[in-house]
Amino acid sequence: MERITARANEKIKYAVQLSSSASKRNENGEFFLEGARLCSDAAVSGIEIVRAFFTSDALTKYERYIADITSACSECYEISKEVASKMSDTGSAQGVFCICKMKDNSCQINPDGKYLALENVQDPSNLGAICRSAEAIGLDGLIVSGGCDIYNPKALRAAMGSSLRMPVMLCDNLSELLSSTDMLTIASVPRKDAEDIRKVNKDGGVICCIGNEGNGLTDEVINACKVRATIPMEGRAESFNASAAAAILAWELKR
Amino acid sequence: MERITARANEKIKYAVQLSSSASKRNENGEFFLEGARLCSDAAVSGIEIVRAFFTSDALTKYERYIADITSACSECYEISKEVASKMSDTGSAQGVFCICKMKDNSCQINPDGKYLALENVQDPSNLGAICRSAEAIGLDGLIVSGGCDIYNPKALRAAMGSSLRMPVMLCDNLSELLSSTDMLTIASVPRKDAEDIRKVNKDGGVICCIGNEGNGLTDEVINACKVRATIPMEGRAESFNASAAAAILAWELKR
Repeated sequence: MERITARANEKIKYAVQLSSSASKRNENGEFFLEGARLCSDAAVSGIEIVRAFFTSDALTKYERYIADITSACSECYEISKEVASKMSDTGSAQGVFCICKMKDNSCQINPDGKYLALENVQDPSNLGAICRSAEAIGLDGLIVSGGCDIYNPKALRAAMGSSLRMPVMLCDNLSELLSSTDMLTIASVPRKDAEDIRKVNKDGGVICCIGNEGNGLTDEVINACKVRATIPMEGRAESFNASAAAAILAWELKR
Repeated sequence: MERITARANEKIKYAVQLSSSASKRNENGEFFLEGARLCSDAAVSGIEIVRAFFTSDALTKYERYIADITSACSECYEISKEVASKMSDTGSAQGVFCICKMKDNSCQINPDGKYLALENVQDPSNLGAICRSAEAIGLDGLIVSGGCDIYNPKALRAAMGSSLRMPVMLCDNLSELLSSTDMLTIASVPRKDAEDIRKVNKDGGVICCIGNEGNGLTDEVINACKVRATIPMEGRAESFNASAAAAILAWELKR
């Protein structure tokens, strides 16, 4: 295994750029993944691993996970601790890193399936937690529009691999997609005049839309949906955290 | 209004200590709150405000919120921008800060009420989001054991005031409390042999326990509960994010 000790190495610089820049990721169609379990999960889930980096400590400590990675990737490097600390986005670096190809995010929607569609959910921890809930509850997939950056390192960590396992469709024009489908489309809005989500008939295919943390859904998306629904609230709280709302809505879609 | 421009001022140093140290908060029975809306909410909710600090910009920009604060607090200071940036825990400081008395966290449990009990939930964002969900869903209160630091500034922000409005009981010995109550006590565990939470009869008073993000509930708490219940999962996800699980469980308690 070739060894990299220079922090200025081009491959290391590229990895750091992918980690910190969404536009770099989109330009190259590749993303950065950190952590033994997460990288091994990606390999096992069929994500194409372009390049992998391990510290010598990691090679012994995470032997089992690293075996999954090296059997899926032919370009592996041993890196020094200094290089690992430059690459790491987390406090407690395990010394395991991959560069991966973005998966095909143009997958088809199953007209009988249950989906959440996320519009401009900004917080990567929310985004990752929503992916995790969607997979755990057994939704058929996620639809994410423009502003949702599922390949952000924090979002990938919070998703614990679920965003790499489950179908995630990137969508440039969510209101167009909603207008053109025969499925039931639900705009979730924190409004008292909206229908109680429990009372909406959710048999058959459903797309339920969740908006930005601060501003909610855009008017275009709300108007493109057949139903406006809400999670009834008590107390003086004005809204749920986006990932809490998503968990309850996903749960109600499958309940 | 007296003006403070020295970052080394004792009152400023004390505020920064309260912001960063849980033991300092517990020792003094006071906590640090930041943000116009949050401080105003605290004042309106009857939280005792010991001392307040505003930048001159904030005094004009957040006039309405600051009126709530000054009518509840007699010790107010104008601070310079430099002092505000030393005090601020957030990137986008509004220049509004309070020192508050911790509220009475020894409140009684209503034997017919619905409660979540949190054991060592560590992440302040999760803790805050859980408070917010619990209030929005209309639970009767939260019970928090040892490790859960509801007065952490990040937790207070994520709770958006709900932790100051709803009954929150601090509990030193959760398993003892669970063993001594006639209410239905539920341990939520991500185990396939546990009961489906939808099928548990939740009429009457219920305390539903949620554990630490990494390790779940302790055996003491699981054994002290009458029922072990779970949110059935599909896919390869092994668990929910703690705040997503809490949202679904709280929702099921009241559904």
